[in-house]
Amino acid sequence: MREVFQQSLDEVRVRLVEISELVSEAIEKATKAFGMSDVALAEEVIDNDPVIDEKAVALDELAIDILARQQPVASDLRTVVSALRISASLERMGDIAEHIAQLTRMRFPDRAIPKGLKGTFTKMGEIDVNVAHKLTRLLDTRDLELAEEIRNEDDKLDDLHVAVFEKVLSDSWQGEAGATVDATLASRYHERFGDHAVSVAKKIVYLATGDWVGSDDAD
Amino acid sequence: MREVFQQSLDEVRVRLVEISELVSEAIEKATKAFGMSDVALAEEVIDNDPVIDEKAVALDELAIDILARQQPVASDLRTVVSALRISASLERMGDIAEHIAQLTRMRFPDRAIPKGLKGTFTKMGEIDVNVAHKLTRLLDTRDLELAEEIRNEDDKLDDLHVAVFEKVLSDSWQGEAGATVDATLASRYHERFGDHAVSVAKKIVYLATGDWVGSDDAD
Repeated sequence: MREVFQQSLDEVRVRLVEISELVSEAIEKATKAFGMSDVALAEEVIDNDPVIDEKAVALDELAIDILARQQPVASDLRTVVSALRISASLERMGDIAEHIAQLTRMRFPDRAIPKGLKGTFTKMGEIDVNVAHKLTRLLDTRDLELAEEIRNEDDKLDDLHVAVFEKVLSDSWQGEAGATVDATLASRYHERFGDHAVSVAKKIVYLATGDWVGSDDAD
Repeated sequence: MREVFQQSLDEVRVRLVEISELVSEAIEKATKAFGMSDVALAEEVIDNDPVIDEKAVALDELAIDILARQQPVASDLRTVVSALRISASLERMGDIAEHIAQLTRMRFPDRAIPKGLKGTFTKMGEIDVNVAHKLTRLLDTRDLELAEEIRNEDDKLDDLHVAVFEKVLSDSWQGEAGATVDATLASRYHERFGDHAVSVAKKIVYLATGDWVGSDDAD
């Protein structure tokens, strides 16, 4: 029984890593499309989002099946319940990549990145991609140092999010209302992506150590 | 055993209703504070959000305890797993009420509602409050007509969300960048509140009927 259960847990982990890889690919393409106004790439992200959604639903079904058949208790139970929550966060991260792609498509053939913020959004996009890769590795290896690194990257995202607002509210800002809307939404999406990654990282740390690190703003 | 389990399920339901009532109160105060620039009321919402968070965590612990001790299967298992997800959505709705309150506090003593959008945001606030009340009744009574009503209210929110962007992007818009940022964020918060309510409503319909109604954009 224990062996069967271990196999089930391994399967859950493999699937979480797979979904996280798809999310990494989505955010990589979405931020690239956003930066280069590449509408074909943006549409690829939008078209692929249902794959992430389906894989998250399938993982939930597997987790519920494990609960029903193997009736785990204690830390095993928490691992399976956490998988349900992690899959919800990953699915949401995929949605955010899709939203960034939709902004790109909506503005095409114009640029979605407002003038004067190209550098900031390039940096935010790079950090989101970096965070997604670290999260995939964290889910795969359970190397908890990666959780700490994700938190640090998220702090940088928060700083850049503030910087976007400072720019938009400064005297030097000459963007029209449309550019202000785009900057506000894009910045919020990039920042939320990091929040969700931190939320997943915390759950993994909690499973490994029993320590819950601070409050959570991303479920 | 069945009787004990039924008592546990009743307890879960009572607690979900209780959290939903707190969320209703939070969104009611937050939208009122937003409309009237009432910073004291906004601070009350912000101060109370941790109570919602704690009750959601306590409910999750109860659900995990039920899974461990009573090892439900089939539809009973789905009910308990759904409670975990519903509590996450309610907790997130509380966060959104807090975000609306924070916008109010950030702009005080100025008005957070940009000129020309007072009517639209008043309407969005009323619908959010309405949705929260319907959701509480749905959780309590499982009257599935309420789920349909929540979906209809959410459609209105989506229309108003589009109307905010149309206004902001129109020639008549004279708001400065700060007003545009506020309108964008506030509209997004109000609209997301409805998405989460629809997400919860769908889960309840699914539990009652086994039918999954369309895609979900709010987890």
